[in-house]
Amino acid sequence: MAKREEDVKLLGFWASPFSRRVEMALKLKGVPYEYLEQDLMNKSPVLLELNPVYKKVPVLVHKGKILLESQLILEYIDQTWTNNPILPRDPYEKAMALFWAKVVDEQVKIRFSTLVKAEKGVEVAIEEARELLTFLEKEITGKYLFGGKTIGFLDMVAGSMIPFCLARGWEGMGIDMIPEEKFPELNRWIKNLQDFEIVTECIPPREKQIEHMKKVAVRIKSA
Amino acid sequence: MAKREEDVKLLGFWASPFSRRVEMALKLKGVPYEYLEQDLMNKSPVLLELNPVYKKVPVLVHKGKILLESQLILEYIDQTWTNNPILPRDPYEKAMALFWAKVVDEQVKIRFSTLVKAEKGVEVAIEEARELLTFLEKEITGKYLFGGKTIGFLDMVAGSMIPFCLARGWEGMGIDMIPEEKFPELNRWIKNLQDFEIVTECIPPREKQIEHMKKVAVRIKSA
Repeated sequence: MAKREEDVKLLGFWASPFSRRVEMALKLKGVPYEYLEQDLMNKSPVLLELNPVYKKVPVLVHKGKILLESQLILEYIDQTWTNNPILPRDPYEKAMALFWAKVVDEQVKIRFSTLVKAEKGVEVAIEEARELLTFLEKEITGKYLFGGKTIGFLDMVAGSMIPFCLARGWEGMGIDMIPEEKFPELNRWIKNLQDFEIVTECIPPREKQIEHMKKVAVRIKSA
Repeated sequence: MAKREEDVKLLGFWASPFSRRVEMALKLKGVPYEYLEQDLMNKSPVLLELNPVYKKVPVLVHKGKILLESQLILEYIDQTWTNNPILPRDPYEKAMALFWAKVVDEQVKIRFSTLVKAEKGVEVAIEEARELLTFLEKEITGKYLFGGKTIGFLDMVAGSMIPFCLARGWEGMGIDMIPEEKFPELNRWIKNLQDFEIVTECIPPREKQIEHMKKVAVRIKSA
């Protein structure tokens, strides 16, 4: 537990999985921080100044240093506060965690758009979106969490993105994307995640998130 | 210099900046490796088996362990062979190098597609593509290389991608995207890079690369 004032500010958005995972990491490390909720429809001058390339959250400011991109922020947090490790130390295990995290952030999001647009038909789009979940189902088999017995990098990345964000979007479209009978291991993992306060404290309220994801789907469709 | 047999195999493609940067890293560390050129138009069963999610190069196989994604492979190489560091040790410096590398791989490639399609007109597309180069121009100002006096992570990522790959594509379209008068610092950096054998040994022949990038542009246009 970090005891003294750490001068940490987090610019985030309540429904963003990228913001949620950074809060999980700060809570895991016990780092006190000031949270500054951002209005992404009306971006603040501070956000535009801190992140001129991407203009998005999360932004972590630590003692005046500006950190961008949620996965890089998790790694920075892990190296700066060394209690409760997030990433494996072994170079291969670490590369694997980073690989699957990259797949989740790049591909699962893309597959959500494919489903919303459903240009090839809804059934085909569902199968495509499930293809990646099948890879993850295989990865989690036989493990309590991706990080082993404790919450790790991939648990934070996939855990913020899939069950409490994208699954709410799929739910809003009337689709159970991760049914128990097809994905027993992923369902077990989602339940295990909720044993941890640092996760449950960071999950947005279900109905509010579903409403938000419906709006996201409308934006994707009209884009 | 790694002296003994290291059992390292690299599956790559001659024109791919992602493959080139992994070779740069292996050469920098002095790691002996077996290079296996892949035909990306006719993917081998070995490649499909080793990289079922993305089905692409580079793939590094080290003592039977399979490493994917060029940036993650660079990090693995850096942690496994600790001579001639590639990434900064300082968590903030490291996060910055990884941030700009992410920008290069995600954005510069996207901007090349925008230019090829030129839906908003060529002049607008050129300005958009140059926007990111302007950020990099600012980053390299006052430095010999991004990594300081020695070649680092961002030099390998941006160095394999921009001057010897994308710039050849732009050249094939008759566009000098990084003119000396607009980008003096980036031009100085490109010259400095070529002081290093590990870079020059990994640069594809100019005319051959231009021909290849012309084919890439045709594929982007017809996609």
